Amino acid sequence: METWRLTATEALEKIRAQELTVEQYASSLLERIKQRDDDVRAWAYLDEKLVLDQARSLDKVPIDKRGPLHGLPVAIKDIIYTKDMPTEYGSSIYKDDHPELDAGSVMILRHAGCLIFGKTTTTEFAAVFAGTKTRNAHSTSHTPGGSSSGSGAAVADFQIPVALGSQTIGSIVRPAAFNGIYGFKPTWNAITREGQKFSALTLDTIGFFTRSVSDIELLTDIFAVHDDDESTFSSVKGSKFAVCRTAQWDLAGKGTKDSIAKATDLLKAHGAEVEEVSLGPEFDPVVEWHGILGQREGGTSLLPEYTISKEKMHDHLVGWVENNRKFTRKDQLQAYDGLAALRPRFDAIADRYAAILVPSVLDEAPEGLDSTGNPVLAATWTALHTPMLNIPGFRGPNDMPIGVSLVAPRFRDRHLLKVGKEVGPIFEAKGGWNQSL
Amino acid sequence: METWRLTATEALEKIRAQELTVEQYASSLLERIKQRDDDVRAWAYLDEKLVLDQARSLDKVPIDKRGPLHGLPVAIKDIIYTKDMPTEYGSSIYKDDHPELDAGSVMILRHAGCLIFGKTTTTEFAAVFAGTKTRNAHSTSHTPGGSSSGSGAAVADFQIPVALGSQTIGSIVRPAAFNGIYGFKPTWNAITREGQKFSALTLDTIGFFTRSVSDIELLTDIFAVHDDDESTFSSVKGSKFAVCRTAQWDLAGKGTKDSIAKATDLLKAHGAEVEEVSLGPEFDPVVEWHGILGQREGGTSLLPEYTISKEKMHDHLVGWVENNRKFTRKDQLQAYDGLAALRPRFDAIADRYAAILVPSVLDEAPEGLDSTGNPVLAATWTALHTPMLNIPGFRGPNDMPIGVSLVAPRFRDRHLLKVGKEVGPIFEAKGGWNQSL
Repeated sequence: METWRLTATEALEKIRAQELTVEQYASSLLERIKQRDDDVRAWAYLDEKLVLDQARSLDKVPIDKRGPLHGLPVAIKDIIYTKDMPTEYGSSIYKDDHPELDAGSVMILRHAGCLIFGKTTTTEFAAVFAGTKTRNAHSTSHTPGGSSSGSGAAVADFQIPVALGSQTIGSIVRPAAFNGIYGFKPTWNAITREGQKFSALTLDTIGFFTRSVSDIELLTDIFAVHDDDESTFSSVKGSKFAVCRTAQWDLAGKGTKDSIAKATDLLKAHGAEVEEVSLGPEFDPVVEWHGILGQREGGTSLLPEYTISKEKMHDHLVGWVENNRKFTRKDQLQAYDGLAALRPRFDAIADRYAAILVPSVLDEAPEGLDSTGNPVLAATWTALHTPMLNIPGFRGPNDMPIGVSLVAPRFRDRHLLKVGKEVGPIFEAKGGWNQSL
Repeated sequence: METWRLTATEALEKIRAQELTVEQYASSLLERIKQRDDDVRAWAYLDEKLVLDQARSLDKVPIDKRGPLHGLPVAIKDIIYTKDMPTEYGSSIYKDDHPELDAGSVMILRHAGCLIFGKTTTTEFAAVFAGTKTRNAHSTSHTPGGSSSGSGAAVADFQIPVALGSQTIGSIVRPAAFNGIYGFKPTWNAITREGQKFSALTLDTIGFFTRSVSDIELLTDIFAVHDDDESTFSSVKGSKFAVCRTAQWDLAGKGTKDSIAKATDLLKAHGAEVEEVSLGPEFDPVVEWHGILGQREGGTSLLPEYTISKEKMHDHLVGWVENNRKFTRKDQLQAYDGLAALRPRFDAIADRYAAILVPSVLDEAPEGLDSTGNPVLAATWTALHTPMLNIPGFRGPNDMPIGVSLVAPRFRDRHLLKVGKEVGPIFEAKGGWNQSL
């Protein structure tokens, strides 16, 4: 197998066993990128020399001084600060901007021995649906999704085993679903977002793209994402799952409808009980409230850029700052308080199940690169602050990959990953799509 | 009157009228600092040449290109990034650290024409009660409070008209009360905190120190802090106020008890109705919940620094990351959800009054520099996300200044300032302490 095909877990084992040097691994990924970059264009910044210099330095670290993720290459969404690379936020306002600091997340990764590989593309401030230069890993004429466009495409295309992303509506699970990989959004504020562009403070969440659930666990370990109790989940067989379609289900297309149906059948075929769960009418305003906070908190976050260079900002973002939808402070408070009241209610519902199966996206990736697609089906879970795991494995009517998600109560992140580790291989084996190119 | 005595509003008028150049103003402040710095020690970083260069550049800006706060010197708490100065967070981990970027707040100030003057001291990560090198503006043997120690002392000592600070428990109103000036904590997330060290994400709030309420209004204008409706408050006479002592009132000392009593009498003497308001027993856990979030969210925020250099961190902060009080995720969720449920209930109570009078601090500044004092009486309002305005004017039993605060419902910031503009002069005239040295 080509080295660049390794998952993070596999690669770290080989590095630990001294069967692979960090330089060899990095070189293999650079080779893969060289072959594929004209098609995929996932990188906002990549300095081959910097990568190899870092790799060689890591190889020189004595074995007993190596961190738990020694030699793991990680791509960083370009809204997250890296001291040795520019951070441009996908905005011309920040062209070539390069403050020399690491985000909190990058500090932790670097200290664990990761090779901070390069910056992956993002839509403008991770806040618009207009596409980037990046294409889907599986088709140059399809969007990779957004806003973590480059992170999703690069991991799916085997250019990097792990990438950081962020989600304010659906910016992790959408690119993960569209590119056919795992995407994990932890519980809100389980991991520090310091040094990462703000959009909506009560919605923004940092998370990960990988090609296996074990790889996500490597990261949740070093970021100290722990549940209160170890999960008692042991197998799909005998467990109870729910399917939750939310109030926006009518918008879902054939790819999503079929995937949810197939996922349900597969869980049942493996001995799980699966029931429909309706959240009830009090959850109907969740997506509207999410939208109000997105706009009002986003307007607060982008006031500095608006003040300085509004002419360089997407109209959509100018509209947030100018509050063009005329949301009042009362609307904003109703959204804060309404969502806060629903969070524990959802936790109580979700606690009855091993996990709840939900759509990640409306359908497989739409054709074209102008739009990164509609994230609305993910908004509920971002607003409710729950952990959310996109699992790949399904194929849409146009032969593109499509994923579905599992969600769990807040701060049951490790439990959800444990469930995902059993469910993932089932979907990948029988859903109609597997990650091997 | 010496130029350095001017409030921001007064100085801007003179600059606008071309009676004062920015260089003259800056030079006067530098002169004042030179006289007083040995005693007060408010500055973490101050480069006289940089100040004067900026001042001269501002003087060269054509009149029709000047921003609304053209020439206003502002001090920046040293947990907030400034592109032309180091940011050390009061931590030896960040000694001489100087990433070249402006925090969102500083971008807006600079664009409005402010002279970013220097960095004011903070306790370590704005998160411990151990003192800094800074002394109270009115006594070298008394603490200035914290964590915004330098901001409070510098404004009170007429070294700067305006300073940025931040509050996670009581770090704006405490130094304001101890030094005898105005301190304003807006509604949570009304102003972006991007580029400012995280402590507890759902509690941290950026705010201002000034010597007049009009000066605060200059800042809320450029930061677009607006209420839904213009306040109908017109005068103290005929208005209804409440006094709220909270569950921690037994801890208050003579200075605070006397000040609240005197403030109540003064409001009544000026024709206001003042009644006691009790929040009810469901508010009893507010301070405990605040403490849980402070520790758990603080632990998340400081994990990067802990990972890299825990030996350089205060034990208190190491304890947060290590969760030495063994708070569970369930405790954390109960705190999130419990506080969220109380916020609209408090708003409804506060809506019945022009404002609610509350203690800012336990008592006047304690003697000694080792501790910045206990912030507990401010915790409730930080946790409830309300705007909070410390008003000076009172004198403690040891002849140090002491302030009391007014609070209002969330997003009634401008209303609260309008009330404060009437109440402030009453307290300052008759409370026993005025800001003139």
